[in-house]
Amino acid sequence: MKIEGPAKAIAIYIGDSDHWHGKPLAAALVELAKKEGMAGATVTHGVMGFGARSRIHTTHILRLSEDLPVTITIVDKPERVESFLPKLDEMIQEGMVMTWDVQVEIYRTGKPTDSSA
Amino acid sequence: MKIEGPAKAIAIYIGDSDHWHGKPLAAALVELAKKEGMAGATVTHGVMGFGARSRIHTTHILRLSEDLPVTITIVDKPERVESFLPKLDEMIQEGMVMTWDVQVEIYRTGKPTDSSA
Amino acid sequence: MKIEGPAKAIAIYIGDSDHWHGKPLAAALVELAKKEGMAGATVTHGVMGFGARSRIHTTHILRLSEDLPVTITIVDKPERVESFLPKLDEMIQEGMVMTWDVQVEIYRTGKPTDSSA
Repeated sequence: MKIEGPAKAIAIYIGDSDHWHGKPLAAALVELAKKEGMAGATVTHGVMGFGARSRIHTTHILRLSEDLPVTITIVDKPERVESFLPKLDEMIQEGMVMTWDVQVEIYRTGKPTDSSA
Repeated sequence: MKIEGPAKAIAIYIGDSDHWHGKPLAAALVELAKKEGMAGATVTHGVMGFGARSRIHTTHILRLSEDLPVTITIVDKPERVESFLPKLDEMIQEGMVMTWDVQVEIYRTGKPTDSSA
Repeated sequence: MKIEGPAKAIAIYIGDSDHWHGKPLAAALVELAKKEGMAGATVTHGVMGFGARSRIHTTHILRLSEDLPVTITIVDKPERVESFLPKLDEMIQEGMVMTWDVQVEIYRTGKPTDSSA
């Protein structure tokens, strides 16, 4: 899969306590992205925030709450992102999904012969 | 509040040790965003970085420094972001603020009837 | 250095276990960005993800794997980013690099007289 060139990034903002069919929603979203063959996904924990639910969440070292912000970033070609977005609709009960245009400069799977770009 | 559609993201890069009126600056910025009715804010801790101050910060597990990078991401409609930015001017003594155009695809507060988008 | 105005952000997605000349690749990339005089760099750890290697990585509190996702975000003027990107080519054996257009609204080094922007 060659994805270098124009692409789209998706950022999904949900809560750490959100679940989908008994599993953490962030994990379910990463697995969906994997199953759909998306080029990549990364989950990052926030330490404070608010959003669609309009609450301020916070944590301190060694005091981890159950509902801190979680961000999932997914990247692929624009047409693949467009096909992927409707699949999120049912899973995001509370939260925000945004997209923006990016340029994939390097996408490399570890084969040294990949470096012609 | 309906914010789906064209929007702007703000990313604020400051240090973990920055304060504003006796309170951590990151928390003060999230509270300001909340008070101004912004659609969402998320604070993320970095583990290494440099920026306007031009120093390299780093941490290792269980060795947390006081001045690691902190990123606050805020999203809302373009005109609301434009009104919000001047309020940051006084609070950011050292650091960087950048914005970029995004598209809000889903913004949902937990009401199932919200899913027509 | 005045970088307010149109700029480009770079996001580099690699693994926590990637190394470059015996040093963690994330640290090597931050040092390169510093040496090249880039305006800022921030390293963030993810808690789950997959990418060019197409594996799902995960962690739980106090159980830290060696190959979790790491994101390095770097920002500067477009022409400086264009000059910087080729330097990444050799260092990124596996992973993804993307760029997008941003606007630097505030870039401040702590000198109060900097606030004319």
